Amino acid sequence: MPTSRRALRATGSLFVHLDYRSVHYVKVALDRLFGRDHFVNEIVWCYAVGGKSRRGFGRKHDTILWYARSADWAFYADAVRVPRRGGSHMRVVGGVQEKTDRRTGRVYRYPIAAGKVPEDWWTDVETLNHSDRERTGWPSQKPERLVERLLRAVTAEGDRVADWFAGSGTTAAVAQRLGRGFVAVDREPAAIDVAVARLTRQGRRLAAEGAPPPPIRVARGHKHRR
Amino acid sequence: MPTSRRALRATGSLFVHLDYRSVHYVKVALDRLFGRDHFVNEIVWCYAVGGKSRRGFGRKHDTILWYARSADWAFYADAVRVPRRGGSHMRVVGGVQEKTDRRTGRVYRYPIAAGKVPEDWWTDVETLNHSDRERTGWPSQKPERLVERLLRAVTAEGDRVADWFAGSGTTAAVAQRLGRGFVAVDREPAAIDVAVARLTRQGRRLAAEGAPPPPIRVARGHKHRR
Repeated sequence: MPTSRRALRATGSLFVHLDYRSVHYVKVALDRLFGRDHFVNEIVWCYAVGGKSRRGFGRKHDTILWYARSADWAFYADAVRVPRRGGSHMRVVGGVQEKTDRRTGRVYRYPIAAGKVPEDWWTDVETLNHSDRERTGWPSQKPERLVERLLRAVTAEGDRVADWFAGSGTTAAVAQRLGRGFVAVDREPAAIDVAVARLTRQGRRLAAEGAPPPPIRVARGHKHRR
Repeated sequence: MPTSRRALRATGSLFVHLDYRSVHYVKVALDRLFGRDHFVNEIVWCYAVGGKSRRGFGRKHDTILWYARSADWAFYADAVRVPRRGGSHMRVVGGVQEKTDRRTGRVYRYPIAAGKVPEDWWTDVETLNHSDRERTGWPSQKPERLVERLLRAVTAEGDRVADWFAGSGTTAAVAQRLGRGFVAVDREPAAIDVAVARLTRQGRRLAAEGAPPPPIRVARGHKHRR
């Protein structure tokens, strides 16, 4: 973790994706490392499919902790806008959502076309199922849409992304597709195989579409250092 | 906290409602006190209204930690069912939602009328606004619907509920309405005033409807003990 922090530029961010069992312990450690002022968001990824529980509510969310290297962290709000939901407490008048503050009487207007920055809980990204096209077979594979929102939020084209627990290479694949540089590391040789195959396949497709990505370099056989 | 735990019967549960700043620290302490095996759910209460953030995603959720006194905790699934959402990955055939597991080919059927136990993230409870009928003016007042789902999940009629940080008395008010006994404590005399007025008003209404609740007893002036 200290190494991850040092690898970040001043405007850079770290995301840590965890489930309900471990997130609290890691949060306490990261607060100490980054400082509580640099904790930007606790993002809750809410999904619907998966196992059920008979003795409580279904455990269907993961948590993503977002820490910034410094107070100057980058955030590209316009790159992550989502459609405004209708209904709720808003009325719609000619392409504009309106609400009136009942206490002050002030009217707020939000153009629907502009969308909105999402809240810190996301229900619009479903878990991968067995027949999804992006599915590699890697057990803990995350949806590209989830990672894409994170990368678009904190990086611009040409920026560089690192993933020290790369698994099937989802972060690298999204970075390659969005024109970000990337470093992907995993201690499992099988993960490297899956990720390299995935990046090669996507690289060919991008090249066929007229936007060939930079070549990838693969280094194997480094011992895991503690 | 140790006192709260000892006050619970063997089938009893503790809920702790916190925001993103403190939840992780309290979780670590409660894991130690109750044991990690007795941590039942991390419930995420997701809302939409409230302030915005320009440098990240809007902070719009609170977390409720649920711990059980023992492995025999009570859970009343049928008391908390909510309507099944349409759409998503399900098809609807004659009042029954169906899905086919694409790998095994097995078909799962869910009668819509039966509803379902909610997931551990709740988007169907909005924060109170200034003109809500249940609004007392207490700053951190929680919606009764939120507390009602928690109480229905773990208590039956006649069971007893305690709230050591009672504020405007939302837990007590819900308990009174649902026929649960209750103890509500707050170190602020102003909170006691608000809660007593609320319980008295609701008690009169319940009596007028033919279901008078037991009388409430108020004890004031106890020094706060550490």
